[in-house]
Amino acid sequence: MKTSIATVSISGSLVEKLHACAAAGFDGVEIFEPDLIASDHSPEEIRALAERLGLSLDLYQPLRDVEGVDEATFAENLRRAAATFATARRLGISTVLVCSNVATATVDSDAHSAAQLRRLGDVAREHGVRIAFEALAWGRFVDDYRRAWRIVELADHPAVGVCLDSFHVLSRGHDPAAIEDIPGDKIFYLQLADAPALSMDVLSWSRHHRLFPGEGDFDLATFVAHVLATGYDGPLSLEVFNDTFRQTDPDRTAVHALRSLVWLHGNVTDAKPPVGFDFVELKAEDTSEVEILLDQLGFTSRGRHRTKPVTLWAAGDVRIVLNGHQARDVAPRVASVGLLVPDAAATTRRAADLMAPTAYRRTYATEQPLDGAVGPDGTEFFWVGAPPAGSAPAWVSEFENGLPPRPDHGVCAIDHVNLAVPWQTADEAVLFLTSVFGLSADAPTEFAGPTGLVRSQVMRTADGSIRLPLNVAPQVLEAAAMPQHVAFACSDVIGLARAARARGLRFLSVPDNYYDYVAGRFGVDAETVAELRELDLLYDRSADGAFVHFYTRTVGTVFFEFLQRIEGYDGYGTDNAPVRLAAQRSVTA
Amino acid sequence: MKTSIATVSISGSLVEKLHACAAAGFDGVEIFEPDLIASDHSPEEIRALAERLGLSLDLYQPLRDVEGVDEATFAENLRRAAATFATARRLGISTVLVCSNVATATVDSDAHSAAQLRRLGDVAREHGVRIAFEALAWGRFVDDYRRAWRIVELADHPAVGVCLDSFHVLSRGHDPAAIEDIPGDKIFYLQLADAPALSMDVLSWSRHHRLFPGEGDFDLATFVAHVLATGYDGPLSLEVFNDTFRQTDPDRTAVHALRSLVWLHGNVTDAKPPVGFDFVELKAEDTSEVEILLDQLGFTSRGRHRTKPVTLWAAGDVRIVLNGHQARDVAPRVASVGLLVPDAAATTRRAADLMAPTAYRRTYATEQPLDGAVGPDGTEFFWVGAPPAGSAPAWVSEFENGLPPRPDHGVCAIDHVNLAVPWQTADEAVLFLTSVFGLSADAPTEFAGPTGLVRSQVMRTADGSIRLPLNVAPQVLEAAAMPQHVAFACSDVIGLARAARARGLRFLSVPDNYYDYVAGRFGVDAETVAELRELDLLYDRSADGAFVHFYTRTVGTVFFEFLQRIEGYDGYGTDNAPVRLAAQRSVTA
Repeated sequence: MKTSIATVSISGSLVEKLHACAAAGFDGVEIFEPDLIASDHSPEEIRALAERLGLSLDLYQPLRDVEGVDEATFAENLRRAAATFATARRLGISTVLVCSNVATATVDSDAHSAAQLRRLGDVAREHGVRIAFEALAWGRFVDDYRRAWRIVELADHPAVGVCLDSFHVLSRGHDPAAIEDIPGDKIFYLQLADAPALSMDVLSWSRHHRLFPGEGDFDLATFVAHVLATGYDGPLSLEVFNDTFRQTDPDRTAVHALRSLVWLHGNVTDAKPPVGFDFVELKAEDTSEVEILLDQLGFTSRGRHRTKPVTLWAAGDVRIVLNGHQARDVAPRVASVGLLVPDAAATTRRAADLMAPTAYRRTYATEQPLDGAVGPDGTEFFWVGAPPAGSAPAWVSEFENGLPPRPDHGVCAIDHVNLAVPWQTADEAVLFLTSVFGLSADAPTEFAGPTGLVRSQVMRTADGSIRLPLNVAPQVLEAAAMPQHVAFACSDVIGLARAARARGLRFLSVPDNYYDYVAGRFGVDAETVAELRELDLLYDRSADGAFVHFYTRTVGTVFFEFLQRIEGYDGYGTDNAPVRLAAQRSVTA
Repeated sequence: MKTSIATVSISGSLVEKLHACAAAGFDGVEIFEPDLIASDHSPEEIRALAERLGLSLDLYQPLRDVEGVDEATFAENLRRAAATFATARRLGISTVLVCSNVATATVDSDAHSAAQLRRLGDVAREHGVRIAFEALAWGRFVDDYRRAWRIVELADHPAVGVCLDSFHVLSRGHDPAAIEDIPGDKIFYLQLADAPALSMDVLSWSRHHRLFPGEGDFDLATFVAHVLATGYDGPLSLEVFNDTFRQTDPDRTAVHALRSLVWLHGNVTDAKPPVGFDFVELKAEDTSEVEILLDQLGFTSRGRHRTKPVTLWAAGDVRIVLNGHQARDVAPRVASVGLLVPDAAATTRRAADLMAPTAYRRTYATEQPLDGAVGPDGTEFFWVGAPPAGSAPAWVSEFENGLPPRPDHGVCAIDHVNLAVPWQTADEAVLFLTSVFGLSADAPTEFAGPTGLVRSQVMRTADGSIRLPLNVAPQVLEAAAMPQHVAFACSDVIGLARAARARGLRFLSVPDNYYDYVAGRFGVDAETVAELRELDLLYDRSADGAFVHFYTRTVGTVFFEFLQRIEGYDGYGTDNAPVRLAAQRSVTA
């Protein structure tokens, strides 16, 4: 597979973009004309720079509004096209993208457009280039790749082929199967973009909301399979217009972009998704407040690490690691998540295949090294092979002088770890977790806090053994100001709440009005409502079951949730999130 | 007119919202149920607080998914409704909003829905409340206010009326004229929201993009006229779901919201729009760099103010005021814009009617006081009556010991003043300039800089004598990091550029590639292209004419543009903005 990317997909000057694409490992790039126009490097200098960087220049784009016009307009268009072809030659580029006419087309005829493309092909050939004709989803007359191919077929010119762009095909719901009717050598170029399922005009959707493959809702694997079935052997090139990637770090976006292509192409080690949480690590200079909370919640200290300022707290198989190493001035925060995987070596190879940045923990001889990767928001993910039922991973034995577990702790499992993700890396996080760990993305939801909407998307395994809700804060808040949390599943959340309260736990206080609402909305009986109210428990119900949960106060940027899923309830009590956010704000206000 | 606003329209806790609405001067509010649920104040406490603040509580909302259902579901819905009505009573609210069923409706029948609303009306009456039935634009069966009214008419119950919401009517393109078929006393409530013309699913449009009246594209004046023609005498209430207003300062949003209602209702002093720019004021601790630029551009110093550390620079009738007063550590920035208006006293009264914050400048006896208002982004606007042709406003005579004007300066007028507006106040700025000065808003455009998309919307008079492009920076940039500029119109921009260059002016450097592009795109002849290239001039052409312009380097956060509009060209060379942004970035990088 030859990989390429349009320069419009990332931020910076053209020179910065070339450096970023080369550093990430792309084979080539498409030059987006406005990037060249605004560059202080001449086409010859850009060509030389690309050569030095080992990048091929695969496409010059776009040439707009050429065909389907009257003769006078077409004569002017040929003059304009010749200038574009000349620039492409100066860049050493042999293929120029021609988009279907949006603005000036007046003649709705395949034969007419074909005749004009044929003449355009002659001019292109004189300049030593060829043209790739693309149906824009919002083309005036030509808005379907099948029609673009008919016109190219009619044009019957060696310098005239088609460009296929997954966005323009899939956004319109067109069946990509007919791609296989096109001879591979007449597909001059292939552009790939994913996109979320949105119901909006296709131009705005295309210009602002495209995503890299794996981040949206398009079936790109099938699309690419149709293209490759034709014998197409040109680049798989990304063209992603996205408001976020236009403004964030180009070096980072380029790696992220290439990861999406590697994942899409499927040339990565097969590794099964994780089967459960191994641990959650919290980092802090002073972990004592967290320790008090954990003790009240039924956890016990299982001891201190042999060589590091790290302690392990556990309730049954549920493990929390408290890390004070190099944590000066750090208030408690989620530093890493440990995952149990079927085959740790396979996951390690897969992470490397996907260019996931390696996460390190200091280990000494005789200690168990954990393989890990750094997620886009800085949270680290570590993995080990899942141990046999009833036993713990080997690293647990490095902790010494702990207390015995409480038999009656009541904590069943880590249900989910909620991460606060900056808007800049939210899409990247979806791709990272999908590609490296095989998680899938639920549809995003939104809920209103007192200072804005929070966007939430859950990454999970099908069986729910891993659930990672990613919350994006409202724009005015820094992501760092939004707390993260670890949610523990229990089989008797009321009993656990009573026990924790008896040990002195302070709950997040829930307003009385909430309980009037619960009684009214769900028709919950008065006795149950009284118990919920007494214990500051929240309640939700779906068609599948019910959900009871409570929150601790926040320490640093972390709080804990305890929850009980009753029958088939599979949600997160999202309707209660506004109540939680308001209560958390009133505590800190 | 009785004014009201739904608490969902602004940010904060319910208590904060009530304080903000009262401080702005609203007569009442609608309580959005989730705001109450999340509040730590009981309904009785909220009621007492509203009374203390002099706010009526006009509506409790919403009760969802009630009618159009089977009997078993309806029985459950009646129980749920009774709880909602009881809460409304505790709040002292007599009207409850019932939305048309979105989720659970299974029976598509006016008679069926009417019968259920009648029974709901009985329960409402038992609780001493009445229900206002509203057709949501995305209702399962009832999505048109005319159908909602038919159902209410069939229900024929004194406690059952309709709620009209401009968004749900106008977003669907429904003709509001039939509102006049509804008796005024059966319209139980009126909700108003504006919205931009967007092509997207109506639910997302409604939940994220509503605006206050005057900020969007709906014809609310006509809508309200139809409602008032029925004899409706209840509140005009704003219900604006907007991602920005949910997270910005509630005190400020409340004033802004009330301004929109005052403007809409038209009970404001009539004042004609400005007829031209009087001056632009730049503020800086050290104005010397700006003075060098102005001198090179043909301006001369017209002297120093009698009593303040302020100098006036002019080229003919084009005036720039440089203000060093209380400007410690301030790099040059646009501080205010002076406008010439037909009747200054009328504009002053209009600004006061619209609660525009007053802008002050220190004046002494015998000095001309200028009336002014502070715009949402902090830019101040001052106005004086337009003087007779050929003479200057009286304030100009307060400047002494200046040089005589250059006869050959070549500067014709201030063409536009480009302001960098934070995203938080961009919509408010549109309403401010529309309502106070009678400017109108062009459709927003976007252009790509090297670090993200810039959104630009021009506020202007019809004749173009006032043009204020408002630019919103990409999210990663602070608005303060995006320079503002003053653009001067000339009748011979090439001559002016040559003269300025001869005086040593450094232009913003335009890349060579740009000129290849201009030659190719517009077919401009080689000699003209050479001249453009030599002088770093930019070029644009439309169907109406052509545009030639250049930029100075940036001083502080200000730069100057000089431009020539040839024939009927009415744009701003927006296609050249990416070239400018890239060049400005490469200067500062």
